[in-house]
Amino acid sequence: MEPHADIAVVGLAVMGQNLILNMNDHGFTVVAYNRTVSKVDEFLAQEARGKKVVGAHSLAEMAALLKRPRRVMLMIKAGRAVDDLIDQLLTVLEPGDIIIDGGNSLFEDTIRRTKFVESKGLLYIGTGVSGGEEGARHGPSIMPGGSPSAWPHVKPIFQAIAAKVADAAGGPEQSCCDWVGEGGAGHYVKMTHNGIEYGDMQLICEAYHIMKDGLGMTAGEMHHVFREWNTGELESYLIEITRDILAKTDDDGTPLVDKILDTAGQKGTGKWTVISSQELGIPITLIAEAVYSRCVSALKDQRVLASKHFKQGNPKFAGDRVAWLGDIRKALYASKIISYTQGYMLMRAAAQAHHWNLNYGGIALMWRGGCIIRSVFLGEIKKAFDKNPDLTNLLLDPFFKKAIKGCVRSWRKVVSTAVKKGIPVPALSTALAFFDGFRNARLPANLLQAQRDFFGAHTYERIDQPRGQFFHTNWTGAGGRVSSSTYSV
Amino acid sequence: MEPHADIAVVGLAVMGQNLILNMNDHGFTVVAYNRTVSKVDEFLAQEARGKKVVGAHSLAEMAALLKRPRRVMLMIKAGRAVDDLIDQLLTVLEPGDIIIDGGNSLFEDTIRRTKFVESKGLLYIGTGVSGGEEGARHGPSIMPGGSPSAWPHVKPIFQAIAAKVADAAGGPEQSCCDWVGEGGAGHYVKMTHNGIEYGDMQLICEAYHIMKDGLGMTAGEMHHVFREWNTGELESYLIEITRDILAKTDDDGTPLVDKILDTAGQKGTGKWTVISSQELGIPITLIAEAVYSRCVSALKDQRVLASKHFKQGNPKFAGDRVAWLGDIRKALYASKIISYTQGYMLMRAAAQAHHWNLNYGGIALMWRGGCIIRSVFLGEIKKAFDKNPDLTNLLLDPFFKKAIKGCVRSWRKVVSTAVKKGIPVPALSTALAFFDGFRNARLPANLLQAQRDFFGAHTYERIDQPRGQFFHTNWTGAGGRVSSSTYSV
Repeated sequence: MEPHADIAVVGLAVMGQNLILNMNDHGFTVVAYNRTVSKVDEFLAQEARGKKVVGAHSLAEMAALLKRPRRVMLMIKAGRAVDDLIDQLLTVLEPGDIIIDGGNSLFEDTIRRTKFVESKGLLYIGTGVSGGEEGARHGPSIMPGGSPSAWPHVKPIFQAIAAKVADAAGGPEQSCCDWVGEGGAGHYVKMTHNGIEYGDMQLICEAYHIMKDGLGMTAGEMHHVFREWNTGELESYLIEITRDILAKTDDDGTPLVDKILDTAGQKGTGKWTVISSQELGIPITLIAEAVYSRCVSALKDQRVLASKHFKQGNPKFAGDRVAWLGDIRKALYASKIISYTQGYMLMRAAAQAHHWNLNYGGIALMWRGGCIIRSVFLGEIKKAFDKNPDLTNLLLDPFFKKAIKGCVRSWRKVVSTAVKKGIPVPALSTALAFFDGFRNARLPANLLQAQRDFFGAHTYERIDQPRGQFFHTNWTGAGGRVSSSTYSV
Repeated sequence: MEPHADIAVVGLAVMGQNLILNMNDHGFTVVAYNRTVSKVDEFLAQEARGKKVVGAHSLAEMAALLKRPRRVMLMIKAGRAVDDLIDQLLTVLEPGDIIIDGGNSLFEDTIRRTKFVESKGLLYIGTGVSGGEEGARHGPSIMPGGSPSAWPHVKPIFQAIAAKVADAAGGPEQSCCDWVGEGGAGHYVKMTHNGIEYGDMQLICEAYHIMKDGLGMTAGEMHHVFREWNTGELESYLIEITRDILAKTDDDGTPLVDKILDTAGQKGTGKWTVISSQELGIPITLIAEAVYSRCVSALKDQRVLASKHFKQGNPKFAGDRVAWLGDIRKALYASKIISYTQGYMLMRAAAQAHHWNLNYGGIALMWRGGCIIRSVFLGEIKKAFDKNPDLTNLLLDPFFKKAIKGCVRSWRKVVSTAVKKGIPVPALSTALAFFDGFRNARLPANLLQAQRDFFGAHTYERIDQPRGQFFHTNWTGAGGRVSSSTYSV
């Protein structure tokens, strides 16, 4: 057969299949390949029946079907499998061809692979793809990074299949895909997206927990709350599916959510985000608490045991339910602003460390539609960066500053009451602690510096002396002439 | 000269010098070596004048002075320098000799180096040394791991120079040094120690912050509080030095602590602890918040700017100061119990992952004296493991269970009031959130699992079905026959 196909997709799990069908909808001819080749035939006979999709039973056959430069997109499990497949692809592809990794790869792997593939004369793209199976099928958010010269060849396909959102200024609709940056930038932004997704989900769970235990509400009653919330500033995909989840009944007519075991799994990206924040020294406290909350949830047996040792008191919130619901909404909204503020602080630090030129408004636009965290809220972030491309901190944008101020009283009320009533709200409360720390010109770290100088001669700066001058006090009167230069606690 | 020296120490910064002087006090003959050899002569002419310390001006000279098996202890900056020095030592040492790394090395490096040095026929020890310069001089806590067959050769020196504590049962005093385990176990335990140290310091800072801003107390007034606290269940080195710091005045007679800049530094070990916890899935939320708090403190310029946008209200706590001080003490104590509970959960998970046979009571004993976190409290942990060596969670030990119960009302009061008053208490509040999550048999992660199944077909378990059975719901009625097997959020 003539080389006529536009792109190949390797890996026929649900994300790969749906991306192929999405590309097909937009007029592209796709070659489908899978290591277990029976899956190729199955896919062609079922989901892809009657479409222009072409099956390949080997990588060589796949390569022969592709126009040049060949575009091969991997939708396979992140990790070693990607390296193995790259090695195999290098035997059937040619200089100038493009390998695209659409899995959740660690950005450091993508940096390494970009260099490696470029050293062989080919081009590499590591791209985030978010939106779950529905997004992949009908329009995901796509965040590509890697070899800049590959982008023009991939852009028409990716921007066609990505989600579209209305332009805030009333212009033509915009694609939720644009070039993110060199090397691992695309996967870094996708990783941060996933970290923020962990945070958003945890915040919703805490709101749900307060409604359930603090206000004594049923799933059906909460369904109505989330339906209402989805018409205001919280309008988002995750609020929308929470609304629908709460309405879903089991075969016996009772709410299905009440039957589900409360042990959440976690895969790589949330933890990677936290690890990166530790490397860069950026306090993304909300995402960290969200990841840890999943870890706590996984300790089900220990929790059941501990619950017998430490009984729950009365968790009921006194007062008017409708008023509380308004307060909870505001607490969630304020915490969400903090979480995105922290996420943007992280991306800014990573960009500096890796010399990426990130377009922060563009990232908000990519996340505005298609992906799991898509929301009206991201439109506001886009606007903030449109107004001020040099905005260093979201909290200082006039819109978000005003929004936080409008929420802060309710936020304190909700967190302090949950604390008193014994309902764990780690994400809501760490967000508030961050806010109170960040807006505090004088934190107690002066004492901490004194402690470090006391036991380790780590030295300190003074408020009445220029920065960069370091002082050591002989606190005990003992001590010697030698300061700590190479030993650090 | 005849080979007559017991041990060599490489690296003459304050920790190295003080360890040498400590070894000398206990009758050992030590060879001192430093890369910049002028430091050797300086040390011999000053701090080591009139002692039995021998100087060496090259590694070969150093090796020639040592009895066999030779014992060479590195007190140098962790990282690449250790690998370089090991390579150099392998040219002057012989099979059976022992290289000891006493710096704050990453445990994974120690695992690797142990294997490498053993492959050359020599033995390796990676050991934690804690106690700052004072500890090194007069008795540190020492946590050695590595090649088990090296331990008998090092034990007499290490146990002699380490801190000593009274035996709880009234027996002879015990050394704060014992064998921790193979490979990187010693450095892992030291890393965890440092993480816990970050947490203890942050908790004290938060208590100080509440006293200063919430109760309007002066440094002198707080000095008296810490003096009193150091006579009860909080008695510890860090409370003791905080007491002394608060009493220290500057040249102008005002409290020195008030002049110190509130930007805390952080080096490797705190962040390593958090990273390891993420890899192992263990929620050490308090240490993580402590590390992040240092990061927030470092953003001084941004904080000063933000403080102008978000004004502080009135932070004063209403009510009786003495009563509040009792509540704050209890909040600190309960949070400390949580932090150590989390730290022990982490070590248990690491031991499982790396096949280390950790002696948890022994670790408490090693930390009981000499090191920065030494305290009466660790004696209670030792007792808990003496009573029940299989104790899986500190919170379930009768002593700590009772202690927490006696604190919980005050703890909630302090955190909820700080939240209302805008004083950031991230460590106190995350500890409480962990407690409330851990003792909760039913967390809201059921909703989270429903969300993950909704957008990513991740499946869930059910409370009315056996564990290990996974269900998927077609939430929208759309969806397909393919589940998410290789693509994970």
